[in-house]
Amino acid sequence: MRLVVLIHTLKNQIMFHHVKDLQFNARVSRPDPRFANLLLEQFGGENGELAAAMQYFTQAFGAKAPHPDKYDMLMDIATEEFSHLEIVGATIQMLLKGVNGELKNAADSSEIMQVMNGKAAKENIIHEALTANPQFVVITGGGVTPRNSQGIPWCASYVNSNGDLTVDLRSNLASESRAKLVYEHLMKFTDDPYIHETLSFLMTREVTHYKMFEAALESIQPNFPPGVLAADPRYLQQVYNLSEGTVRGPWNEGEIKGMDKDFIYVEDPITTIRQTEGLTEQPKDMEKPLADKEKLDKEMSKVKSEEVRKAEPKGVAQWSTYESIGV
Amino acid sequence: MRLVVLIHTLKNQIMFHHVKDLQFNARVSRPDPRFANLLLEQFGGENGELAAAMQYFTQAFGAKAPHPDKYDMLMDIATEEFSHLEIVGATIQMLLKGVNGELKNAADSSEIMQVMNGKAAKENIIHEALTANPQFVVITGGGVTPRNSQGIPWCASYVNSNGDLTVDLRSNLASESRAKLVYEHLMKFTDDPYIHETLSFLMTREVTHYKMFEAALESIQPNFPPGVLAADPRYLQQVYNLSEGTVRGPWNEGEIKGMDKDFIYVEDPITTIRQTEGLTEQPKDMEKPLADKEKLDKEMSKVKSEEVRKAEPKGVAQWSTYESIGV
Amino acid sequence: MRLVVLIHTLKNQIMFHHVKDLQFNARVSRPDPRFANLLLEQFGGENGELAAAMQYFTQAFGAKAPHPDKYDMLMDIATEEFSHLEIVGATIQMLLKGVNGELKNAADSSEIMQVMNGKAAKENIIHEALTANPQFVVITGGGVTPRNSQGIPWCASYVNSNGDLTVDLRSNLASESRAKLVYEHLMKFTDDPYIHETLSFLMTREVTHYKMFEAALESIQPNFPPGVLAADPRYLQQVYNLSEGTVRGPWNEGEIKGMDKDFIYVEDPITTIRQTEGLTEQPKDMEKPLADKEKLDKEMSKVKSEEVRKAEPKGVAQWSTYESIGV
Amino acid sequence: MRLVVLIHTLKNQIMFHHVKDLQFNARVSRPDPRFANLLLEQFGGENGELAAAMQYFTQAFGAKAPHPDKYDMLMDIATEEFSHLEIVGATIQMLLKGVNGELKNAADSSEIMQVMNGKAAKENIIHEALTANPQFVVITGGGVTPRNSQGIPWCASYVNSNGDLTVDLRSNLASESRAKLVYEHLMKFTDDPYIHETLSFLMTREVTHYKMFEAALESIQPNFPPGVLAADPRYLQQVYNLSEGTVRGPWNEGEIKGMDKDFIYVEDPITTIRQTEGLTEQPKDMEKPLADKEKLDKEMSKVKSEEVRKAEPKGVAQWSTYESIGV
Amino acid sequence: MRLVVLIHTLKNQIMFHHVKDLQFNARVSRPDPRFANLLLEQFGGENGELAAAMQYFTQAFGAKAPHPDKYDMLMDIATEEFSHLEIVGATIQMLLKGVNGELKNAADSSEIMQVMNGKAAKENIIHEALTANPQFVVITGGGVTPRNSQGIPWCASYVNSNGDLTVDLRSNLASESRAKLVYEHLMKFTDDPYIHETLSFLMTREVTHYKMFEAALESIQPNFPPGVLAADPRYLQQVYNLSEGTVRGPWNEGEIKGMDKDFIYVEDPITTIRQTEGLTEQPKDMEKPLADKEKLDKEMSKVKSEEVRKAEPKGVAQWSTYESIGV
Amino acid sequence: MRLVVLIHTLKNQIMFHHVKDLQFNARVSRPDPRFANLLLEQFGGENGELAAAMQYFTQAFGAKAPHPDKYDMLMDIATEEFSHLEIVGATIQMLLKGVNGELKNAADSSEIMQVMNGKAAKENIIHEALTANPQFVVITGGGVTPRNSQGIPWCASYVNSNGDLTVDLRSNLASESRAKLVYEHLMKFTDDPYIHETLSFLMTREVTHYKMFEAALESIQPNFPPGVLAADPRYLQQVYNLSEGTVRGPWNEGEIKGMDKDFIYVEDPITTIRQTEGLTEQPKDMEKPLADKEKLDKEMSKVKSEEVRKAEPKGVAQWSTYESIGV
Repeated sequence: MRLVVLIHTLKNQIMFHHVKDLQFNARVSRPDPRFANLLLEQFGGENGELAAAMQYFTQAFGAKAPHPDKYDMLMDIATEEFSHLEIVGATIQMLLKGVNGELKNAADSSEIMQVMNGKAAKENIIHEALTANPQFVVITGGGVTPRNSQGIPWCASYVNSNGDLTVDLRSNLASESRAKLVYEHLMKFTDDPYIHETLSFLMTREVTHYKMFEAALESIQPNFPPGVLAADPRYLQQVYNLSEGTVRGPWNEGEIKGMDKDFIYVEDPITTIRQTEGLTEQPKDMEKPLADKEKLDKEMSKVKSEEVRKAEPKGVAQWSTYESIGV
Repeated sequence: MRLVVLIHTLKNQIMFHHVKDLQFNARVSRPDPRFANLLLEQFGGENGELAAAMQYFTQAFGAKAPHPDKYDMLMDIATEEFSHLEIVGATIQMLLKGVNGELKNAADSSEIMQVMNGKAAKENIIHEALTANPQFVVITGGGVTPRNSQGIPWCASYVNSNGDLTVDLRSNLASESRAKLVYEHLMKFTDDPYIHETLSFLMTREVTHYKMFEAALESIQPNFPPGVLAADPRYLQQVYNLSEGTVRGPWNEGEIKGMDKDFIYVEDPITTIRQTEGLTEQPKDMEKPLADKEKLDKEMSKVKSEEVRKAEPKGVAQWSTYESIGV
Repeated sequence: MRLVVLIHTLKNQIMFHHVKDLQFNARVSRPDPRFANLLLEQFGGENGELAAAMQYFTQAFGAKAPHPDKYDMLMDIATEEFSHLEIVGATIQMLLKGVNGELKNAADSSEIMQVMNGKAAKENIIHEALTANPQFVVITGGGVTPRNSQGIPWCASYVNSNGDLTVDLRSNLASESRAKLVYEHLMKFTDDPYIHETLSFLMTREVTHYKMFEAALESIQPNFPPGVLAADPRYLQQVYNLSEGTVRGPWNEGEIKGMDKDFIYVEDPITTIRQTEGLTEQPKDMEKPLADKEKLDKEMSKVKSEEVRKAEPKGVAQWSTYESIGV
Repeated sequence: MRLVVLIHTLKNQIMFHHVKDLQFNARVSRPDPRFANLLLEQFGGENGELAAAMQYFTQAFGAKAPHPDKYDMLMDIATEEFSHLEIVGATIQMLLKGVNGELKNAADSSEIMQVMNGKAAKENIIHEALTANPQFVVITGGGVTPRNSQGIPWCASYVNSNGDLTVDLRSNLASESRAKLVYEHLMKFTDDPYIHETLSFLMTREVTHYKMFEAALESIQPNFPPGVLAADPRYLQQVYNLSEGTVRGPWNEGEIKGMDKDFIYVEDPITTIRQTEGLTEQPKDMEKPLADKEKLDKEMSKVKSEEVRKAEPKGVAQWSTYESIGV
Repeated sequence: MRLVVLIHTLKNQIMFHHVKDLQFNARVSRPDPRFANLLLEQFGGENGELAAAMQYFTQAFGAKAPHPDKYDMLMDIATEEFSHLEIVGATIQMLLKGVNGELKNAADSSEIMQVMNGKAAKENIIHEALTANPQFVVITGGGVTPRNSQGIPWCASYVNSNGDLTVDLRSNLASESRAKLVYEHLMKFTDDPYIHETLSFLMTREVTHYKMFEAALESIQPNFPPGVLAADPRYLQQVYNLSEGTVRGPWNEGEIKGMDKDFIYVEDPITTIRQTEGLTEQPKDMEKPLADKEKLDKEMSKVKSEEVRKAEPKGVAQWSTYESIGV
Repeated sequence: MRLVVLIHTLKNQIMFHHVKDLQFNARVSRPDPRFANLLLEQFGGENGELAAAMQYFTQAFGAKAPHPDKYDMLMDIATEEFSHLEIVGATIQMLLKGVNGELKNAADSSEIMQVMNGKAAKENIIHEALTANPQFVVITGGGVTPRNSQGIPWCASYVNSNGDLTVDLRSNLASESRAKLVYEHLMKFTDDPYIHETLSFLMTREVTHYKMFEAALESIQPNFPPGVLAADPRYLQQVYNLSEGTVRGPWNEGEIKGMDKDFIYVEDPITTIRQTEGLTEQPKDMEKPLADKEKLDKEMSKVKSEEVRKAEPKGVAQWSTYESIGV
């Protein structure tokens, strides 16, 4: 009897399920509102955990039908990022210990007034909170808030999701790189060993996710150029010299890696541009490459569009597949 | 042996856990980009599921130490709202079936051009998507996006969290009311019976959450005025006549419910205001009520601030309590 | 003769009229740019007076035809909030006394440079203004600005207006609760007795408005659920256990107040959900409640829609009714 | 006795007072959701009435002490703009007649479904509202909203207020110009003669305000350059030729009006710039003009800063002056 | 031979061309993160160089066909503003010297910890940067960023471009006035003589641009009212007395300059408004002026619309005119 | 003599220089306001040319001292993106031909009224413009605007610049990928062969820039992890199974490419997490890897911070190096 209950309970979860224990045992040695404010960047900031969670979560919807394996990966990492968001929020909340209690003592402002008059101990928590972020004491009541270290509310324009995994995964590589760097910067601003541990954990998970996204991108071939269409051979190779004395390097001379072509450095763009009527007159020998491109575009279009179309159900669409539970 | 594994697996989840089956079996009879666009209001709109989930999630952090029971409730409802967010997203994605596949057919725009020239069948999915929301075809690649029906990115200024449950729970009653109404409006714009079922489920859950928040608010006594301080007896009862011929009703005459006082309708505000030098000269008989208020404020301050302070740990703060698993 | 003039002049006002005397005699003992910055929350912040004024003003338009009594109340309170906005702005301006004059002394920066080099008296007004809010000295010229304490411009997404009084009035209850709490917090950060008086006045008016909105909501019956449609009986009563060890309370057990039903605590959601194919298979005994709901929905739809339709004029619409002045 | 009351009532108003009759008798011949949506530009748009009202209102605070006459003007025009905001809102509401009533008929979506399926009469009001602005039918409930024609919430970054009347009044001239043009554009999109009248009134008031601000600016002498400091004679006269074949006109040749100097057209900027080490080496004959400028700057600083400082009260600041009412 | 090359190189530039030398030789004596933060107002702030550059650049597109001379001016000034943007950015970057290097020393936070514990020298650059702007040390890595001094990202709603030069040029006069004032304010907050030189240069260029835009506006006749339509004679002259005791001045009495009419001061607006049924009943003698206005409107419409239409090419539109290079 | 002039003129440019001819000969066959609106995504949208230009421009400031070669590349590509911005703007303007001229015909709305009443030819340009984007006819006057296809003003939160090239260049790879995809999508929505040519050019340049940034990133070694600090060996390898039945692939099994380690798939996270007290108890054999990491972190910190510090000038900082022109 109890066994059956256990088995049921084992699956006792709908979509998102929450457990009170954190993925990482976040601890804080002492309150520090200034660091709490800095840490808001990873709660409600442009490169923070909410941005990451919502980006992968949003991308996952489009990926589900044609790419169920990538859907799994995106949803799992999104879920982990929500857990990280909770770790960051819990740490901020612990760093603000004392603020809410002091605010609740609403009838007595003597302590704060000593602060405002410069007569209080500098480590006064309300003084520190007020200095770090005026909204900590007036709006959030000493709590965490989905805004960045300068009070900008988190905004979904931080989220990139464009319906193509060769693009989305690259967006994710960039997002993870920025998030990693921000944790690196943050670690310089606290000497609390517990927080160091937490940040080291969170920073490293961004590296792990980076490598996961990279592997997923490599498992899609070809994945360049991103999307479907090939580059136009008429405009691909030129690097225009747009200022005097440009330093030369592998980004403007030699081979274009993986494209079997070389950079053409246009020292004198105007001649090319005027002689070609603004690049619209092209040499005859472009006809073959253009035809090749057109053929390739059609092939890729067929492959890519069928990949999606075949995966989509006919008739009524249903997101989940419910299996009967034969107990 | 297997039992032990089951028991472990039973707890096999860290903070947020994701299950592929939705809480509600979302289905869609046929694509409908216009309704997909309307439904964005509940994905990335001001009264939508993300707004609700993030509001309760954010409020929960501050509630955890002093009010662990309310923390549980807030986190559970937040978790359910994340699940609803997924249901809404899944429905939108299914309503956009066909768009991504058509976009992947990048080399061929003949079908779209028929649309653009008004020569295509009106039910063409790309035509409908383009008309409903230009970003569906240019930016999101036929996928869901955390913006509202007019393309405004979701913004954390939709989230209210102020570190006081008598305020936060009232914010939640308002949020649930708005969300309920939006679902009601949305139901008028589709005759797909599957979507009707889904929306009826989601609309009703807002009602349930409303009643849960209401019960939680009532379990806190006193809960009015919100916060700690009492109303100032000098300014509480007046209702100023600020236009001619104001209709009278229970909101400007008779008893102020639950406050043991009556509304005082100031027919002629200027006399009061000028005779009192802008309300700063008050009758003597206010001395007693003011003293009462001051006393009450101090008592409430003591109760409320101690409630928070006592719940906060001394020394190192730790969010979770890890129990050893003695299997 | 003069009497007639008086009577005319008595009505001598068009829509909004402005009087130079404030509703409350706002005074300030001494400049304090830091408090000025905090107080911006109630000028250009999310819970401030502009937000309140614009919310009730916007709601009033839709209410006018079908609910002229509530229109009066909304417009009167909106008008009072505009007056409060002026009181808050006047206080901020007085708190910044000295800044503009110093900025106008544009040719001489010696005093400021002493500040910048840390050699000036700490109470230097420019130093305080610069520290409190860099825009006070560079952008606003020592004046008030419709932004919050962190410089975020006021944004109309703070305004909720949804065309249904049972929803709008609940939004207002939440708005007034938040505004009250913010004044309570602010009062801790100044010991200027004049400002204390002003804030006590403003805080209390939020309480009064709360009670007015509450009475207005109660005067509408039924007012729950908000909007028109009843809750779906299939999904109303369940509370899902979404984490382990959820604390029980009146929000997840016992009676659902005012709905003649009990909460059903779903300890094991997955069994319910999977056995019902994602809640889509329901027991037979739901047929009757569903039919009841449908009937009720139709009745309420008729009542509510006729209420609005009957109040709307046929033919040419005219907002005001001009009465001839037969003098 | 009654006379006394009348006299009192005559002043019966606190700060803002509202009268139900509009300044202009706004009327609407028939509903037109599309024009309602366009008209939102003047309600919640960047050049609309709220932007104007809030701009002049915000500017007025800083002007009050040193420039009570300009304060009066700014407050009066702000007050009129609030009245215009109400006229615009009333017109939009009348243009949406029928939408709210239809939404309240929540149980019946048959009519809308005919629309969604293309089978309804095109003049169906819900169809028009949905097409014009999806939020009209899902969020605002057929009411006005402080957003623009594309759903962007009104934002206080539209407001310019910089603590200097020679700047603020110029900002106002630009604001009035833009508002006038928007009304001109709007008038092309309706043939309702009542709305034409209303728009003609509103457009013309912008012209009147323009002339008022212009006269106020002229009454301040000198008013150029705006602010306090004179132009630096070393950099004032040059016009740099930054592209080939620049057309010459009074903006780059001849007299600089009112400055007693001529434009110097720098045909070959690089010679000047390199020969002067990036303009840092200047001819000796600049010494005198520079000394003149320095002297002028000091004089103007003295005049302008004293103007402000002298107007500010010593000691306790009080915004209003309450006169006793000797009845 | 070389000559030919020179001539080609002379034109060796496509649209925008970049030169490493700045227009003004920006220098900085020593790092100063606080001033760097203030200076962000002119990089990413509402009145800064990016706002100016993008405003004139955007306006230029519409001006090109009908007003090629004004197009030249707008594009040239836009180009100069981009150069100024670079000067401001370079100055900010130099003011942040040391921050990036310290952040790269990621393994060692000892120095910063001394700061955080209040034990470090106050001139520590990281301490100053952190205090001035938390994002300098966490997000931008010690670099410039297109946000203002409070972290608000630059936003295109700062840009006004309305397709009519009599409006756009007035917007520009206001923009230049504000930008000039901000530079004036900024100059008070640094005593670095190099930066003073740079700011004096930039401030003065705003004055120059003001005079250029003013001359351009005067070269268009008539330019008032802005746009095409004349003011409505029924509503133009009234100034409404909306508060008691309004100060009289040239903005509400005497001649309306340039319009051959006088202000009419309406001491008692309600009589006018009620007697005219909300201004809709007008005296007979308005017939002639109204007819005149209508005639003028038609004439101006013809002139202005033909001006644009005639300038637009028939058939295929091409932006540039490529001339063959016959060398 | 003329030669000298030529040589001077050759360098006749300051910072940004503008040439009237476009880099690409943008042409348009016929007006098409709907496509103009879609194309706004690449003018004022999140992945458009302004976003790209401002991102590389902003990044360039921090790169200049330590990485002059990358500074050149970033500035050159930024400059080219400004040129592309002009191409896009010019195309949009040409697509809107006729709108401004029609608006200038302000006195006559007969044509538009035919449109509004559904009686006009569908190809009426005002009708198309109004339908595509209401602001085209009310706000922009038929011109281009720095907003996206849904009217959201361009916002600097689209710009990523973090003071580390290993991060910034990855941000750029993502930006170019998204921009390429958006052009690909856009190409489906026009059959104008001229626009196809232009879009093919612009799309391909994104591919070229991608390869340039990729080569630049590879020229920095090591470049992973981005930033300075190594990954924490305790948390790097784990992939947590956060849902049931996760599909396995190279992103969660086998080698972590380039890190000489394997993914560790944690089938049962809770055991690990609880047994390690939330990952804080680690096996002894982590001591050596942790010591290695610490050593590596210090080395990298030294290398990276010195790279920056050595490149920064002592004393007065000067951005440009002016060479005397010895002519």
